Amino acid sequence: MANITKKVSWSSRADESGATGEGTPLLNGSGQPRYCRQVPLRCCDFLLCFFLLCLSLQDSLRGRLKEIPHNEKLLSLKFESLDYDNIENQLFLEEERRMSYMGFRCLEISRWVVCGLIGFLTGLIACFIDIVVEELAGIKYRVVKENIEKFTEVGGLSISLILWVVLNSIFVMVGAIIVACFEPIAAGSGIPQIKCYLNGVKIPRVVRLKTLVVKVAGVICSVVGGLAVGKEGPMIHSGAVVAAGVSQGRSTSLKKDFKMFEYFRRDTEKRDFVSAGAAAGVSAAFGAPVGGVLFSLEEGASFWNQMLTWRIFFASMISTFTLNFFLSIYHKNAGDLSNPGLINFGRFESDSVAYNLYEIPLFIIMGAIGGLLGALFNKLNYWLTIFRISYVHRPGLQVMEAMLVAAVTATVSFTMIYFSDDCQPLGPDHTEEYPLQLFCADGEYNSMATTFFNTPERSVRSLFHNQPGTYNPLTLGLFTVTYFFLACWTYGLTVSAGVFIPSLLIGAAWGRLFGILLASITATGSIWTDSGKYALIGAAAQLGGIVRMTLSLTVIMVEATGNVTYGLPIMLVLMTAKIVGDYFVEGLYDIHIKLQSVPFLHWDAPATSHWLTAREVMSSPVTCLNRIEKVGTIVDILSNTSTNHNGFPVVIQGADGDEPSKLCGLILRSQLIVLLKHKVFVELARSRLTLRKLQLKDFRDAYPRFPPIQSIHVSQDERECMMDLTEFMNATPYTVPQDTSLPRVFKLFRALGLRHLVVVDDENRVVGLVTRKDLARYHLGKHGLEELQLAQT
Amino acid sequence: MANITKKVSWSSRADESGATGEGTPLLNGSGQPRYCRQVPLRCCDFLLCFFLLCLSLQDSLRGRLKEIPHNEKLLSLKFESLDYDNIENQLFLEEERRMSYMGFRCLEISRWVVCGLIGFLTGLIACFIDIVVEELAGIKYRVVKENIEKFTEVGGLSISLILWVVLNSIFVMVGAIIVACFEPIAAGSGIPQIKCYLNGVKIPRVVRLKTLVVKVAGVICSVVGGLAVGKEGPMIHSGAVVAAGVSQGRSTSLKKDFKMFEYFRRDTEKRDFVSAGAAAGVSAAFGAPVGGVLFSLEEGASFWNQMLTWRIFFASMISTFTLNFFLSIYHKNAGDLSNPGLINFGRFESDSVAYNLYEIPLFIIMGAIGGLLGALFNKLNYWLTIFRISYVHRPGLQVMEAMLVAAVTATVSFTMIYFSDDCQPLGPDHTEEYPLQLFCADGEYNSMATTFFNTPERSVRSLFHNQPGTYNPLTLGLFTVTYFFLACWTYGLTVSAGVFIPSLLIGAAWGRLFGILLASITATGSIWTDSGKYALIGAAAQLGGIVRMTLSLTVIMVEATGNVTYGLPIMLVLMTAKIVGDYFVEGLYDIHIKLQSVPFLHWDAPATSHWLTAREVMSSPVTCLNRIEKVGTIVDILSNTSTNHNGFPVVIQGADGDEPSKLCGLILRSQLIVLLKHKVFVELARSRLTLRKLQLKDFRDAYPRFPPIQSIHVSQDERECMMDLTEFMNATPYTVPQDTSLPRVFKLFRALGLRHLVVVDDENRVVGLVTRKDLARYHLGKHGLEELQLAQT
Repeated sequence: MANITKKVSWSSRADESGATGEGTPLLNGSGQPRYCRQVPLRCCDFLLCFFLLCLSLQDSLRGRLKEIPHNEKLLSLKFESLDYDNIENQLFLEEERRMSYMGFRCLEISRWVVCGLIGFLTGLIACFIDIVVEELAGIKYRVVKENIEKFTEVGGLSISLILWVVLNSIFVMVGAIIVACFEPIAAGSGIPQIKCYLNGVKIPRVVRLKTLVVKVAGVICSVVGGLAVGKEGPMIHSGAVVAAGVSQGRSTSLKKDFKMFEYFRRDTEKRDFVSAGAAAGVSAAFGAPVGGVLFSLEEGASFWNQMLTWRIFFASMISTFTLNFFLSIYHKNAGDLSNPGLINFGRFESDSVAYNLYEIPLFIIMGAIGGLLGALFNKLNYWLTIFRISYVHRPGLQVMEAMLVAAVTATVSFTMIYFSDDCQPLGPDHTEEYPLQLFCADGEYNSMATTFFNTPERSVRSLFHNQPGTYNPLTLGLFTVTYFFLACWTYGLTVSAGVFIPSLLIGAAWGRLFGILLASITATGSIWTDSGKYALIGAAAQLGGIVRMTLSLTVIMVEATGNVTYGLPIMLVLMTAKIVGDYFVEGLYDIHIKLQSVPFLHWDAPATSHWLTAREVMSSPVTCLNRIEKVGTIVDILSNTSTNHNGFPVVIQGADGDEPSKLCGLILRSQLIVLLKHKVFVELARSRLTLRKLQLKDFRDAYPRFPPIQSIHVSQDERECMMDLTEFMNATPYTVPQDTSLPRVFKLFRALGLRHLVVVDDENRVVGLVTRKDLARYHLGKHGLEELQLAQT
Repeated sequence: MANITKKVSWSSRADESGATGEGTPLLNGSGQPRYCRQVPLRCCDFLLCFFLLCLSLQDSLRGRLKEIPHNEKLLSLKFESLDYDNIENQLFLEEERRMSYMGFRCLEISRWVVCGLIGFLTGLIACFIDIVVEELAGIKYRVVKENIEKFTEVGGLSISLILWVVLNSIFVMVGAIIVACFEPIAAGSGIPQIKCYLNGVKIPRVVRLKTLVVKVAGVICSVVGGLAVGKEGPMIHSGAVVAAGVSQGRSTSLKKDFKMFEYFRRDTEKRDFVSAGAAAGVSAAFGAPVGGVLFSLEEGASFWNQMLTWRIFFASMISTFTLNFFLSIYHKNAGDLSNPGLINFGRFESDSVAYNLYEIPLFIIMGAIGGLLGALFNKLNYWLTIFRISYVHRPGLQVMEAMLVAAVTATVSFTMIYFSDDCQPLGPDHTEEYPLQLFCADGEYNSMATTFFNTPERSVRSLFHNQPGTYNPLTLGLFTVTYFFLACWTYGLTVSAGVFIPSLLIGAAWGRLFGILLASITATGSIWTDSGKYALIGAAAQLGGIVRMTLSLTVIMVEATGNVTYGLPIMLVLMTAKIVGDYFVEGLYDIHIKLQSVPFLHWDAPATSHWLTAREVMSSPVTCLNRIEKVGTIVDILSNTSTNHNGFPVVIQGADGDEPSKLCGLILRSQLIVLLKHKVFVELARSRLTLRKLQLKDFRDAYPRFPPIQSIHVSQDERECMMDLTEFMNATPYTVPQDTSLPRVFKLFRALGLRHLVVVDDENRVVGLVTRKDLARYHLGKHGLEELQLAQT
C-alpha cells in the first residue's frame, strides 16, 4: 500500500529541480520512490498495478474514503514561473558580443530546422495515432458487429452487450492504468496544462518524453475503448512535448545529449518552440495551420514577434502536410492531400451551405443555446471535478471509475440502439462504415447505430453531410441527451482524451435536430431543409459554449470546413456562446486551471484595479544579496524553507555602511545553485579565484532540472569563502517605482514575460519584489475586485 | 507661381500641431497658404490648377529642373511618434478609479460598436469603388471596342488608338490633379504610410477625411484610366482613415463633434482602431478577414492582446460581409455571398489543383524567380523614385508624368494587341468580357486583348482559370515584359493606386508561361498540363518578391483562392522569394519608407548590437523641468527651436539645493501646451490656484491637433507665475539603467510602444532620454552595424 498515495493535482509531486515556486518549501519529503508511476515500465508492473488497485478499491469500499478539502479562493505557491526575460548578465553579453553576424544567421537557420522537425514529428505522431485507432477500432467494431448479427437471429443479444462492455473496459483499463500509475499529468486533453505553460507557469513534468509516450498510448486506448472522447486535444500536448524535446537537442529521460541546439537551453527559447509545437498539434488535429498559429498566439504569446510567428506557421504547415501525406499513403491514394487533419469535416460546397441574412438571428439563437448548454456542461463537470478531487484520488479508484464509465457508455449505447426503431434504407454508396441491421428489414440499417456505433469523428461527419431524412428527431434528441451526460462524466477521468470531438458531436446532433424542426414548421423545399448546415452551426455553438475560445476556434472551424463563407456566422455564434456562457460560469479549461489554483495571468489587469499600486501588491521585505556575498549566507538563504524566493535582488552598499544600499542586479536561485555546485568561490585570505572560469555552458547543462540545494555539499571552510556575483547577475533588471498602478505593473510584467519585477523607491533602493502570484491573486469576482489567498496546496 | 512649390516627402508640411518631432524646429515658415492643395476644393480650382501645371511644365522645359539632393543614410527628425503608453497621471488615475465595473463594460461595448461601424463603412467604400470602376471601365471599354470594330473593317485604327489614349489620359489627369494639388499623401497605395502609422510614427495628415476622399476618387480615376495599378492597396489606407475618423466621434475637418467616444481620444486607443481599419481594408480588398487580422498584427502590433485581436477580426468580418452583400445586390443576385473581396481569384477546386511532392522543387524555383524579378522591380523602382524625388517634385510635372504613363500604357497595349496574331476561338460560355475580334476570323478573338483590354482583376482571373491552350507562349512572354516595365514605371506616380494586382498579373503571366513550357517538355496528359496552378504560384512568387510580406500574404492568398490545400506551396514560394529578394534589395514598401527617412522600428534590435548600451544610444543632456516650474521657463523651453523635445522628465530637488535632483515624472509638450492655453498657473504671491480645474476632457478636446506654442500668448506677468505639474505628469515613467544593452532597451521600447524612455543612474537621477530616433538609427548594413545620421530633412 505504501506505493499508492493520493495524487490530487498536476503538481502533487514537485519537479526534481527542488525549486518549487516563488515562496514554497524546498523539501518535498523523503527521497524514496513514493509513487507507483516511478516504477520503470515493465510488463509485470501492469499486473502489480492491477493488484494494487484492487487492494485500494477494497480499502475504499471498507469505508475509508477520505475527503480532501478544497477551496477555490486559493492560489497555489507550488508553481514556478518560466522566465521569458533573458538573463542579461556579463557571461551572456560576452557571448552575444563574440558572436558574428553569420553566427546569428546560423542560429536563425537552426531555429527553422527545429521548427521543421517539430512539425514533421508531430505530424507523424498524429498519423500514428490515427492509423492505430482506425485499425483497432475497426477490429473491435467488426467483432462486435459480427457477434450482434449472429445473435440477432438466434436471440441472446445480452452476450453481445457483454462482449462490447468487456472489450471497451479492457481498452479503457489499460489506458487508465498507464495514466494513473505512470504519468498522471498525461490525463485529460492537456490543453489547460499547455495554456498554463505558454502563460509562463512551469507545470512539473508536462513536457517530458514519458508524458508523451503515456499520452499517445492513453489516447489510443480511450478512443478505441469507446469513451465519449476525441483524439484531437491530446495532439496539442503531444506537439508541445515534441517541441520541448527536439529544441533542447537532448533527452534528460534517456540520458542522451546530442550536443546540438545548446543555445536554446533556456526558458525564452524553449517557450517559443513549445508555442510552435502546440500550433503544430492543432494543425495536425484539425488540418488548420492558421488556426494553430492563432491558438498559440491566443493562449501563449505576449510579445508578438513576426519571425517567431512565421516559424510557428512553418511548423504547423509541415505538420499538417506530413499527416496528410502519410495518411494518403495509408489510404492507398498517395498524393491525394485531402486529409489535412485528424478530424475531417468533409467538404462543404458553397452552394449547399449558402445562408441568408434572415438566418443570422437563428444562428445567434443557436449560439445562445450552445452557451447555455455549455455552461450546464461546465457546471456539472465542475461539481464532478470537485467530487473527484475530494474522493477519487487513488489510482485504483481512478481506474475503476474509468472502467465504469466505459462499461456504462457501452451499455447505454447498446440500449439506445436496441430500443431504437429508426430504420433507414442503406444508401447506394454505402456511406456507413459499420451499418448495423439489427431488427431492421433487409437493405435497411439502424440509424441510432450510425451515431453510437462508430468513432465520434465519423459520427460528426455523418451529422454534417448525410441527406435530410437520415435521422429522425427522436433519435437525435435521445442521442444528444445521453451523449451530453456521458461526455460530461468522461471529461476529467484519468485517461488521456480530449473534449473537442464530443462537444462537436453533441452540438451537431442538436443542431441537426434544430434544423429538422425548423424545416418541419416551414414550407418544404425552402432553404431550411439543409439540416447539415445547422449541424455545423450547432457544433460550433456547443464547442464555443464549452471551451470559450474565440478567434482561433473560428479559424479552426473555417479551415476544417474548408469554406470561408461560413466565417461570419461561425464568429457570431462563437461570440454569442461565449457571452451567454460567461454569464454563468467560466470555460472548461479555465475551470480546471482554477481548480488547480494555478497563478494564471490574464491579458489585462482587472478593469477596476487602478487604485492598487505596486506598493500594495509587492512582496516585502525582500531577501537581498550583496554583490560579494558570503557562501554561508547564500546557502542559508537558499535552504530557508520559510522565506524562499527564486529571485534575489543584488545590492551594493555605500562606501560607509550608513548609506543606503542601491539595487545593482538580480540573480536567480538556479544560478546560485550552479555557482555553488561549481564552487566559484573567492577565498578572501588569498584573494584568488578558482581556476576554472564558469561558462554559460555550465548553466545550460544544468537546465532545466537544477539540483536542489540539499544535494550540494558545502563544507564549513567553504562557508567562510565569498562569492562574487557581479559576473552572473542580471545587471539591468526591470524596475518600477512604488506608486506605479497595478495595470501598469501588470502590462510591463505580462508584455515582457517577466518572473521578477523589482520595486524601488526614488533613491533606487529595493523595497519589494513583484512576482506572478502577486499579480494573479487579484481577480474580478461577483463583488468587484477580490483577492485570492496564497497557500501551499 | 508662388502657390506651387516643391513637395518631396510625405511630411513636407508639418502637422498643424506644430510639434514636429523629437528634436525639430517648431517653426515651419510663414503662416500663408503656400500650397495649391490648401485651396478649398472648388470647381474653378481644377482649371486654375491645370493652368498652373501647364505653366510649371513650361518652366521645367525651359531647363529649370532643380535637383533636390537625396541621401539615404539619413533619419528624418520631422516625424513625431505616437504614444502607445497611457499617460498615467493623477487626472487619468482619478477618472479610472471613479469608473465602475459597468463603466468599463460600456466602454468595451462601444469599442465593439466602433469596430462594427469601421467594418461596415470600409465595406461600403470598397463596394462603392468597385461599382464605380466597373461602370466607368465598362463604358470606356465598350466605347473603344465599338470604335475598334468600326475601324477594323474600314481601316484607320489609329483613330481608335487616339480615342483610347485620350480617354485614359483624361481619367488619369483628373486622378493625378486631385492627388497632386489637394492631398499628396494620398498618392500610392498608402501601405507604407499605414505601416509607419501602426509602427508608431505619426505621418501628418495620413488619417484625415480629405485624404480619404482624394484617395477614393483618385483610385477610381487611375484604375479606369487603364494604368497598371490595382484598387486593393488603397483600401487598406481607406479603412485606416475610416477607423481614425469613426473612433474619435468627431471630424476636425468638418468641425463636427458628436460628443461620442471621447474616451478614445488618445493615441493608444486610436492606434488600436486604426489597426482594425487596416484589417477591414485588407479584408474587403481580398475577401480575407483572417489575412487582414494577420496583416494588422504583422505590421502593427507589438503587444498582442486577445480582445483587441478579436475586435479586429470582427471589423474584418463585417467589412467583407458588407462588401459581399452589397455586391450581390448590385449583381442582381442578392444573398449569393460569392464576392467576398474586390479581387476574386475564382474558385480553385481541390481536384484541379492537386500537386505532388515532386512539384515542390519546381515551386521553389518559381519562388526564386519571383524573388529575382521582384528585386529587379524594386531596384528599378528605387532608381526611379530617387529620380522623382530629385526632379519630379512639382504638381505640374507629376500630373504630366502620370498622363504620359497613361498614354504610353494605352499605346503599348494597343500596339501589342494590334501586332498579335494569337487568335483563339470564342468559348461557348463567352467568358471574355470584352472580346476583341480585330483581325481574327469570325468566332475567334484576339488573345492578347484578354490581358490588356480588361481590368487587371479580370486578367488575373483569366490567367488562373482559362483552359490550357488559351494563351500562346509568345503572347504571355511579351505581356510579362511590357507589363513589368509599365507597372514599375507606374508605382510611385502621383496617383492613388496599389501594386498588388499588377504584381499578381505579372506573376500569373510568367507563371502560366512556366507551366506551358513545362507541359511542352514533358509528356502530354501529365499533371503539368494545368498551367493555371503555375499561374497562381507565379503570382504568389512575384507578389512576394516585390512586397516581401510573409505570414499575412500566405493567408491572404489562401483565403482568396478559398482552398487550404495550397497553403504549404504558397508559403514555401513566399519564403523563397523573400530570401532571394532580400539578398539583393529590400521590399518595395521598406524602400519607400527608407527613402522618406522615417524612423521605423523593426521587430528586434540588430543582431550584433549587444555591445551598445543605453548610455551610448540615449540623447543627452536632457531638458528637465521642476515639479513646480516657472511659466516663463516652460514657454522658453517650448519655444526653443534648437533643443526641443516632446517629452520632459520632471525632477524634484533635494531639501537643500546641493542634493541631486531625482526623477519624479514625465510630461509631454502637448500637455504643457494645454496647460499654458488654459493658464493653469499658481500665483506664488497669493498662493492660489486658478478657479477652473483642468479636466481630462480639456486634453481630449485638444487632441490630436494641439496648437503650436507660438499661437499661445503669455503675458509678462504670467511668465512670472508658477505652474504645478504634479497632477498632470506621468508619475511613473518607465526607466532603464545606463548599462542596459541596446536589445534590452529596444525590447522594452517596442513591446510597450513607448515614445520616451528615461535613462537613470543608480541614484535615480536623469542622465538621458531614449526616443524612437535613437533606436531606429542603428541598422545592419553591408559592413555590420551602421549608424544613420539624423537630419532635419
